[in-house]
Amino acid sequence: MPEKILVVGGVALGPKAACRCKRLLPDAQITLIDENVYISYGGCGIPYYVSGETQNLDDLRSTPYHTVRDAAFFAAMKGITVRTQTRALSIDRQAKTLLVKELASGKEEALPYDKLVLATGATPRMPKVEGGDLANVLSLTRLEAAQAIRTACEGGKLSSAVIVGGGFIGLEAAVALADMWGVKVSVVEMMDQILPGALSASLARMAAHDLATHGVAVYTSEKVVRLEGTDGAVRKVFTDKRELDAQLVIFAAGFLPNGQLAKDAGLDVTPFGAIAVDEHMRTSDPNIYAGGDCCSIRNLITGKPGYLPLGSMANRQGRVIGTNLAGGEARFPGYVGTWAVKLFELSFSGVGLTVERARKEGFDALSVSVEQLDRAHFYPEKSMMSLELVLDKASRRVLGLQGACSDGMALKARVDAVAAALQCGQPNVEDISNLEVAYAPPFAAAMDVVNVVGNVADNVLSGRFTPVTADTFIDLWKKRQENGIFFIDARPAAAGKSVQERHPDWHAIPLEEIAARVAEIPRDRPVALICNTGLRAYDALLILARNGVTNTVNALGGMQAVNKMGLLL
Amino acid sequence: MPEKILVVGGVALGPKAACRCKRLLPDAQITLIDENVYISYGGCGIPYYVSGETQNLDDLRSTPYHTVRDAAFFAAMKGITVRTQTRALSIDRQAKTLLVKELASGKEEALPYDKLVLATGATPRMPKVEGGDLANVLSLTRLEAAQAIRTACEGGKLSSAVIVGGGFIGLEAAVALADMWGVKVSVVEMMDQILPGALSASLARMAAHDLATHGVAVYTSEKVVRLEGTDGAVRKVFTDKRELDAQLVIFAAGFLPNGQLAKDAGLDVTPFGAIAVDEHMRTSDPNIYAGGDCCSIRNLITGKPGYLPLGSMANRQGRVIGTNLAGGEARFPGYVGTWAVKLFELSFSGVGLTVERARKEGFDALSVSVEQLDRAHFYPEKSMMSLELVLDKASRRVLGLQGACSDGMALKARVDAVAAALQCGQPNVEDISNLEVAYAPPFAAAMDVVNVVGNVADNVLSGRFTPVTADTFIDLWKKRQENGIFFIDARPAAAGKSVQERHPDWHAIPLEEIAARVAEIPRDRPVALICNTGLRAYDALLILARNGVTNTVNALGGMQAVNKMGLLL
Repeated sequence: MPEKILVVGGVALGPKAACRCKRLLPDAQITLIDENVYISYGGCGIPYYVSGETQNLDDLRSTPYHTVRDAAFFAAMKGITVRTQTRALSIDRQAKTLLVKELASGKEEALPYDKLVLATGATPRMPKVEGGDLANVLSLTRLEAAQAIRTACEGGKLSSAVIVGGGFIGLEAAVALADMWGVKVSVVEMMDQILPGALSASLARMAAHDLATHGVAVYTSEKVVRLEGTDGAVRKVFTDKRELDAQLVIFAAGFLPNGQLAKDAGLDVTPFGAIAVDEHMRTSDPNIYAGGDCCSIRNLITGKPGYLPLGSMANRQGRVIGTNLAGGEARFPGYVGTWAVKLFELSFSGVGLTVERARKEGFDALSVSVEQLDRAHFYPEKSMMSLELVLDKASRRVLGLQGACSDGMALKARVDAVAAALQCGQPNVEDISNLEVAYAPPFAAAMDVVNVVGNVADNVLSGRFTPVTADTFIDLWKKRQENGIFFIDARPAAAGKSVQERHPDWHAIPLEEIAARVAEIPRDRPVALICNTGLRAYDALLILARNGVTNTVNALGGMQAVNKMGLLL
Repeated sequence: MPEKILVVGGVALGPKAACRCKRLLPDAQITLIDENVYISYGGCGIPYYVSGETQNLDDLRSTPYHTVRDAAFFAAMKGITVRTQTRALSIDRQAKTLLVKELASGKEEALPYDKLVLATGATPRMPKVEGGDLANVLSLTRLEAAQAIRTACEGGKLSSAVIVGGGFIGLEAAVALADMWGVKVSVVEMMDQILPGALSASLARMAAHDLATHGVAVYTSEKVVRLEGTDGAVRKVFTDKRELDAQLVIFAAGFLPNGQLAKDAGLDVTPFGAIAVDEHMRTSDPNIYAGGDCCSIRNLITGKPGYLPLGSMANRQGRVIGTNLAGGEARFPGYVGTWAVKLFELSFSGVGLTVERARKEGFDALSVSVEQLDRAHFYPEKSMMSLELVLDKASRRVLGLQGACSDGMALKARVDAVAAALQCGQPNVEDISNLEVAYAPPFAAAMDVVNVVGNVADNVLSGRFTPVTADTFIDLWKKRQENGIFFIDARPAAAGKSVQERHPDWHAIPLEEIAARVAEIPRDRPVALICNTGLRAYDALLILARNGVTNTVNALGGMQAVNKMGLLL
């Protein structure tokens, strides 16, 4: 008897698992069911279809060789039966059957299985607010929604939109609408920063500034309380602080894993509703596998069950499940949480924990940040990169890395290297200082920015200097009347002097002059140093220390970081 | 008594070690000696100065904040004494003195030390050939040579050049001269490929094709035997196969570590003349450290002493030595061999062993290669990337990764991730299939090219198909009369048919038609499949297998790889 395999869910993991299994086990009878019309599409591409960068909707559900992946494709090319518009109702684990319902006819049917795969995905969180059922209030996970928005944009019918949620999808949607179609976009985020959990507060300020300078209004610590419409379509959004025009409201406030089918069948499910699986992506029933957005997998940094709904995770897990369905013993050990997002001027990327998240997880965490060019400073093409390394103080263990750069691929290179290190072991600060990355002037600096952030971390952990983030430095500067700090700008003379002319409290003492002018620096006040990137200020701080001035702090990332955050002196 | 520290050699590692030590140990008396005029310069930047991309020679010896690093800079800013044009003659380890000679005055002097650092670098290998002493025959390691070549280019005085050696520096020099100044450049390489030891034969064909299509002549398996000049300046190069015009000859045929000073002092030196050091970069004398191009360090993949003279290695090692000079116990465990080079259209990068090198090291090695876009196929901006993964067959251990891409930074991202994995453990094929890299459509595919090369390796190692490289495929095609192979082009109909019109032996059977047309395929002959990238051919091969046609091979990388190698059907 050929093996009967049922797959519930046809977006990313389901088709991958089915195709992989069929390749290894050509005789298997594989049926994939999905309640929607479209299957096997790149949901992550939706913002790029909305913007017009991806021209045709079909591009999102085509192979790289331009064949549309529909039921006919899976039947002819992959030998897999696909039943769309068919909903899975319940699992009878004893009988090994899945009860399904054809949505068109209403017909129910119990399908037998030897192995079952749950790829039920996740549902966008739609907070219950008044007016939430108005037209043009939607989430951005379905192709139908993408099509509707694009059509509205092309027809010039969309002038204002509100995005609820400042996570990846929300910001990608904001960029797509504002950059390509000139829509007036507002992002409303409940937390006190955008990209919460992904970026530190400081890096999030850079992201917010990038959005703001390109016309996207960002409102944090703010909650949507009510929507108002005309003729059944949304027209206004009311937050707890203001009123915003909106002909379109996109809810991008996270996802809830679709674990109910599994839970009803008595499978283990985490407290947050995701299906629990082992390293082989098997549920608590050895005949049932699960993966993708409906599952919890192990966070390799905290060691705890975690959740990372990403298409790339689903694809890799799908292959593991396909192998195991065919009798293999492939493993998926967990995740470290690697991500990237392109905004306007800047791209952001990271891996592991932010400093705030690490503290919540119980680590005695610290982060240090640097600004450095991504290539040799004498190479003509280059970008300034911000990198922030997150550490556990006592063990010097690396917990995460996040950054910002106009060259997103250059940033990804640094993040992916640290991500790989985090997957293969528990790297410490010294491992980052020594991390061997591909070097030639068009690709990196001889002492690369990723090594430098390790070196700075080592210096801070060894007590060689006390860092402050650039935004904290500016806060200190603004409160200089109260705190009595003496401020030194160690940049070349011209840069510092132009500020000093406006603010006499701002002391332009270039690094080159600091040894000679050490007498100008008061001994009874704390000293705060800044320069362009943090490099000259560190050298200046060492010279001061040699001269007995030790109550000093140094602004990490210097004026580069200040400017990226859009802060004013 | 303050610690007396002497550093011999002032290019990369020496200044780094000196500055780091001085930061940690402000009272140390540190003297750096160098026999040349220029110190602390980025030698790797020389090709970019020659090309004009780096405008001023001083940019190569400036800090990122544009201060020239000369003796005065080190004295004023770093508290380090620098003595240029001073040669180290010998070490008296008993007396702890270094005998030096001032080149201008001829004066000799024994300098006392508590700790000594050898950063003596390496000497370009200059094969002894007749005419080797003519003017304009030089290596590309000194700023003076860079200046002379740039001046000749700017004066329009250089129309032809020969580069001896097809390694990194040789090729960078070839690109600089040909691309920016239109010089007719020939590269002569003794080995049977360029970038030997760094790239596989197949990838090296892509590099050679990139050079050839941009006017750089590449002659491999060829040796320079004689130079001929007019008025004392070189005019012609004679190889064992031809005669080439040359107003400039650059020797870029590798380096010899400068280990003689150490050897004469009785320190441990490897058979190839490099100074042996432990994990703390200490020589066999605990008071003497060494690092950079004069040293041997451990290859983490082979476990054997190795040699990798790169500015980035020197910088990182310099910091380790600086820390240890100040009483620390910093470690430098070894290297995995990560590199990158930008040619014309393509950049190349890699880590670890090539398949040929791995076999020489005794591994039962295999490599597989793929061609895939570096980003989501529906994202408008993207590049085709070639990746080749090198494996040990039995253990499935990953030994190396090399690749080619027009977006060098995108390639670096994949290489650096695998490099980090190789530094932190012994990753196997499954680790590469699961490698978690930052994903969003502008940065990667949902199943990223680096995961795919792992998946293909898994399929090959599991015996699911037999791969051939694209160049082997073309060899088989050319010998089709002898080997009787049946050739199938599985690309969409139009692509294959245009070839079939010229070559009736080339059977255009698109993947979509292969199941229906399986009767056309002979059972008594081997079958070779090709498509655009290898993906469709793999699916076609599986369909054939299900239909009992199993004597098949699949061209890795498909026509993309064929075209990158400049091969003709």
